[in-house]
Amino acid sequence: MKFTITARDQKTAARTGILKTAHGSIKTPAFIPCATQAALKGMTSQQAQECGTQMLMVNTYHCYLRPGPETVAQAGGLHRFMNWHKPLMTDSGGFQAFSLAYPKLVKISDAGVEFRSHIDFSKHMFTPEISIGIQEKLGADIMFAFDECTPFDASLDYIKDSLRRTHTWAERCKKAQTNKSKKMQSLYGIVQGGQFKEMRRQSAEFLASLDFPGYGIGSIFGQPKVASYDALKWSLEVLPEKKPIHFLGIGAVDDLFAGVELGVDTFDCVLPTRLGRVGYVFSSQCNKKTKWRYRITNTRFKHDYSPLDKNCTCSVCQNYTKAYIHHLYKANELLFYTLASYHNLAFFNNLMQDIRRSIVNDNFLKLKKKWLQ
Amino acid sequence: MKFTITARDQKTAARTGILKTAHGSIKTPAFIPCATQAALKGMTSQQAQECGTQMLMVNTYHCYLRPGPETVAQAGGLHRFMNWHKPLMTDSGGFQAFSLAYPKLVKISDAGVEFRSHIDFSKHMFTPEISIGIQEKLGADIMFAFDECTPFDASLDYIKDSLRRTHTWAERCKKAQTNKSKKMQSLYGIVQGGQFKEMRRQSAEFLASLDFPGYGIGSIFGQPKVASYDALKWSLEVLPEKKPIHFLGIGAVDDLFAGVELGVDTFDCVLPTRLGRVGYVFSSQCNKKTKWRYRITNTRFKHDYSPLDKNCTCSVCQNYTKAYIHHLYKANELLFYTLASYHNLAFFNNLMQDIRRSIVNDNFLKLKKKWLQ
Repeated sequence: MKFTITARDQKTAARTGILKTAHGSIKTPAFIPCATQAALKGMTSQQAQECGTQMLMVNTYHCYLRPGPETVAQAGGLHRFMNWHKPLMTDSGGFQAFSLAYPKLVKISDAGVEFRSHIDFSKHMFTPEISIGIQEKLGADIMFAFDECTPFDASLDYIKDSLRRTHTWAERCKKAQTNKSKKMQSLYGIVQGGQFKEMRRQSAEFLASLDFPGYGIGSIFGQPKVASYDALKWSLEVLPEKKPIHFLGIGAVDDLFAGVELGVDTFDCVLPTRLGRVGYVFSSQCNKKTKWRYRITNTRFKHDYSPLDKNCTCSVCQNYTKAYIHHLYKANELLFYTLASYHNLAFFNNLMQDIRRSIVNDNFLKLKKKWLQ
Repeated sequence: MKFTITARDQKTAARTGILKTAHGSIKTPAFIPCATQAALKGMTSQQAQECGTQMLMVNTYHCYLRPGPETVAQAGGLHRFMNWHKPLMTDSGGFQAFSLAYPKLVKISDAGVEFRSHIDFSKHMFTPEISIGIQEKLGADIMFAFDECTPFDASLDYIKDSLRRTHTWAERCKKAQTNKSKKMQSLYGIVQGGQFKEMRRQSAEFLASLDFPGYGIGSIFGQPKVASYDALKWSLEVLPEKKPIHFLGIGAVDDLFAGVELGVDTFDCVLPTRLGRVGYVFSSQCNKKTKWRYRITNTRFKHDYSPLDKNCTCSVCQNYTKAYIHHLYKANELLFYTLASYHNLAFFNNLMQDIRRSIVNDNFLKLKKKWLQ
């Protein structure tokens, strides 16, 4: 993997870059949709590509449980299994093990994490070595180190102990990576530290000393966004600025601007597809107050023959109307999920393209102001 | 509309043709998938076209209830509403009114049919004039006359009375068609008559005398297939042989061969998409005993990295494996519906292409024998 910074904003830490992997290059800053179970919900990989997607994130926890890493490995890895021949990343499996599957039954020790499957309640253990082993079988271009995702209200004492563990795990992940994988897969370290400035700085310093090819930043769920922005800021002040930075699980419109402004290169989030499935459509006609989206399920669209977003160039907006997509939702048609997800992904991909252009043209803050006013 | 017979089988009544409509031509014999509610289940119109679909059937009953004919008319008709710019047909709405919505509450009179909506139990009335009015608003290239679909066990006395009604309705449908619609939309008459040879012949004779541009043949649901084949045979012996013939709601592999052999030009059926959604995959590797399909849901496919059908040229078979599609089913992924439906439609479209070639090359019966053995 090679990361080249191609342009810098004059007033902020925003930058554009090229992230080159064994499966091609992506332009950063980039939005990376989640193909949770080795599939984008309701979209083929061809459609994902058509709407401008450069890279996908697959969840290790989900693929470990179903179909299982052996099934993917025998297929020749995730790229071939899911017919996505562009760059891919996998997370460590930690976040879902901590949050999705019976959080109260999760047992954390220095060895690793014991958890229950959300599918059949079966007992499983993730350790740094197991996470890397699974991720190597999945074969994504970027992997993440196994870390502890702490609750947003964790105390300083807890965070101190957790960071010690996360740092040891980062070292173990690095050691666990096989020589074969090192040639094709880049392992990102993850900065944690909750909402404590000193902890974030310590974490960033320690991880920087391990010289990972890139870094993920753990965000703080359940707190006002500004807490995550602070955590991001403190981490990025310390991390080597030439390394690519990924902001984990974050991707609302304002988050993207905030992250890019601080120097983030990639974001992953389920927002466009998940909100699409329940009837939310992103649009350049909406604003901060409405979170840049509206509900296509509203009856006022029954006879609205305009596209979902009149400024959008995606093939859904070129070929289908609000009235039709509203009808598909009301009639419980599967096609609804496809069209809503497609447009929403196109919206995010186009927004990132605009952001990249604004950095090159030195008007990033102007674009940010336009969107966030 | 213009129908040209381009080749004839030497040993049977099978023929190939070109059916030219205001939205382009289709090659017959053709399979016409059902886009029931103005959408193929789980597939975009682009995907429908890619897998070889030439024409779609939309259900008048469904579109009348949801989104309503006015909504479609204001969009500029079904072609624009659903982004399908190739030929389209709509049925009369009768079959669903009789069968889908509380059959026991259906009231049939010479005026028309009173029925309850399957969505909200509201009361509605279809008459020949109302059916044509709706179909004109929908704007498909081919419409069907409103007819009574009789139960498979109807007595001769009932069929006689029903035919009298169906024939009067056919005349009323013809009269109801507006001059504007006549230029763009072709109205097919429908031959009924249950399983009685004399009734079928009478019906075909009467409808032939009305000189419709094409004819639909009502099949007999709930009886052994041979009853429908007989009904088809008796009807086709009487109908003018230069007119295009549509066999309504029928489309298993053996039905297609039987129909083509007797001179049918087009078929519509929900089979490929409906069976796809519950896990059935059509394959040239299967045979009559298994109805040319298998269940991809079976655990033996968990590690099968071959395509759904090794002889299939569709993009699902070129790019995805049984193991992946099996995983999508097990993981409740929406993409499963898309890929299974896509392949199944491609299977039927390819089969029809093979049938057309066999007629041109004068080996239709050889192809039939190969598939039906």
